[in-house]
Amino acid sequence: MSTLCVPSHVPSVAEDCEQLHKAFSGWGTNEGLIISILGHRNAAQRKLIRQVYAETYGEDLLKALDKELTSDFERVVKVWTLDDAYLANEATKKWTSSNQVLVEIACARSPKELLLAREAYHALFKKSLEEDVAHHTSGDFRKLLVPLVSSYRYGGDDVNLILAKSEAKILHEKISAKEYSCDDIVRILSTRSKAQINATLNQYKNEFGNDINKDLKADAKDEYLSILRATVKCLVNPEKYFEKVLRLAINRQGTDEGALTRVVATRAEVDMKIIKEEYQKRSSVPLDKAIAKDTTGDYENMLLALLGHEEEA
Amino acid sequence: MSTLCVPSHVPSVAEDCEQLHKAFSGWGTNEGLIISILGHRNAAQRKLIRQVYAETYGEDLLKALDKELTSDFERVVKVWTLDDAYLANEATKKWTSSNQVLVEIACARSPKELLLAREAYHALFKKSLEEDVAHHTSGDFRKLLVPLVSSYRYGGDDVNLILAKSEAKILHEKISAKEYSCDDIVRILSTRSKAQINATLNQYKNEFGNDINKDLKADAKDEYLSILRATVKCLVNPEKYFEKVLRLAINRQGTDEGALTRVVATRAEVDMKIIKEEYQKRSSVPLDKAIAKDTTGDYENMLLALLGHEEEA
Repeated sequence: MSTLCVPSHVPSVAEDCEQLHKAFSGWGTNEGLIISILGHRNAAQRKLIRQVYAETYGEDLLKALDKELTSDFERVVKVWTLDDAYLANEATKKWTSSNQVLVEIACARSPKELLLAREAYHALFKKSLEEDVAHHTSGDFRKLLVPLVSSYRYGGDDVNLILAKSEAKILHEKISAKEYSCDDIVRILSTRSKAQINATLNQYKNEFGNDINKDLKADAKDEYLSILRATVKCLVNPEKYFEKVLRLAINRQGTDEGALTRVVATRAEVDMKIIKEEYQKRSSVPLDKAIAKDTTGDYENMLLALLGHEEEA
Repeated sequence: MSTLCVPSHVPSVAEDCEQLHKAFSGWGTNEGLIISILGHRNAAQRKLIRQVYAETYGEDLLKALDKELTSDFERVVKVWTLDDAYLANEATKKWTSSNQVLVEIACARSPKELLLAREAYHALFKKSLEEDVAHHTSGDFRKLLVPLVSSYRYGGDDVNLILAKSEAKILHEKISAKEYSCDDIVRILSTRSKAQINATLNQYKNEFGNDINKDLKADAKDEYLSILRATVKCLVNPEKYFEKVLRLAINRQGTDEGALTRVVATRAEVDMKIIKEEYQKRSSVPLDKAIAKDTTGDYENMLLALLGHEEEA
């Protein structure tokens, strides 16, 4: 479901590093060369490149990117090269209630991926992700977000339908009473497996008529409700969630490059194929065309490379 | 710091399994043989024995122990052979507010060990530890226990002293206001690293005069406060905590075999040497002597084997 194109014959890591180093050297930077390498390597390969680059040139690749690249192009190359631990750390530092990055990392990754990000967080920042989230948030947001980022859900498909029925009822009662941040809603969304939550939300719809997210829209401007809806979508339907983030980023007055970059860089290797299909269905325009229309230069080229678009070299 | 004695020359796993199988066979069970094997193998060896036993005899070793052993001896051999995931699962099912097993598993293990227990929990029970804890508890207990068992603390020694000072102040304010289950106390105890919490509690004592646990004793009979004190002790001074559990288990009218078994079986391989020293300092009687006086037969022999006591074969 990835849109990333890795060539069938990949150069050695040493060669990749040498080429990257060359791209940074001399007068001006060779952005095309950077895209042709980094835009066509998977996560494991990129990790290895960072490691060998640092060993060979005594400088973190990230530092080199910092120095050589600018603005949106720099950002997309960096988000693509970094891992979730960095994104999460950044999000804890500039937390605003509308920041959904933490929800995405906590809910749209597999339980194992979230765990690896937490492990990387320890190594990089000498503290835990959850303590930073807890420290930088408050009130209802903290109540929901700390358990979400601390979760290590069961990852299997086993589902308990009796439980799904009873918890659908609990959710409906609490939502009807507008107790959106009550213990039960937080508990169900932050501890149950994705398969179990999916079953519960199906029961919810069967039993009470509405998608839960429709019932969570009582006040469309309430930031906590919007985070709650993002949580639900990232858990049970991440492709639809990301399609909408992309659509809003592209359609609004003045493209939201931050969101565009984040979604393309974090989903290209996961489910971007499906996101593209969803986008086309919903907007009647291919995603690459829409992005090409809204962006330019190296930034555009990098995004399109990640979307699997053939480059006009 | 372990009291477990593993012989310098350990028989092959196949031999161990054969001997165990022999111990279960025929008329009567050879308890001495079981102790001489299982009482002298480390966790990795016991795990391998269970695996090979199942492959060789088509029966889980646990089932065999179930059938052949009884009462306290059965319990100590099983707790010793099982891992934390089982103990935790048992604890979620028969939760009473005085049950401190979950606190011990969440706080007296290393962050990595807790994580491995959660992973084993997924595999064994097809759900997460935290969802079971959340489902079976309520109120203040749930508020504290779910984040504790969900924690994946930073495990390093780095400490932020400014943070320690400010959080010591927060703890003191909340405790003075008797807000024992407030967000801040739960957040600090469930997300900060053990080294950081230790620094914070040192600040607390320097600044406000008392050990925090003294201030958490406002009502000695309050079950939530007692769980909170256990949390603090398991985090910063597990040996003292377990020494006291042992001391109370032995000294009370009618030994508390449940607690005795749990502490010996879960700490023999961790810090039992220190616990023994603490016990002797505090009670002026060696722990082995005290246990030998309070227990009999195979149960006594197994406990003493785990305490590193030379067996009088």
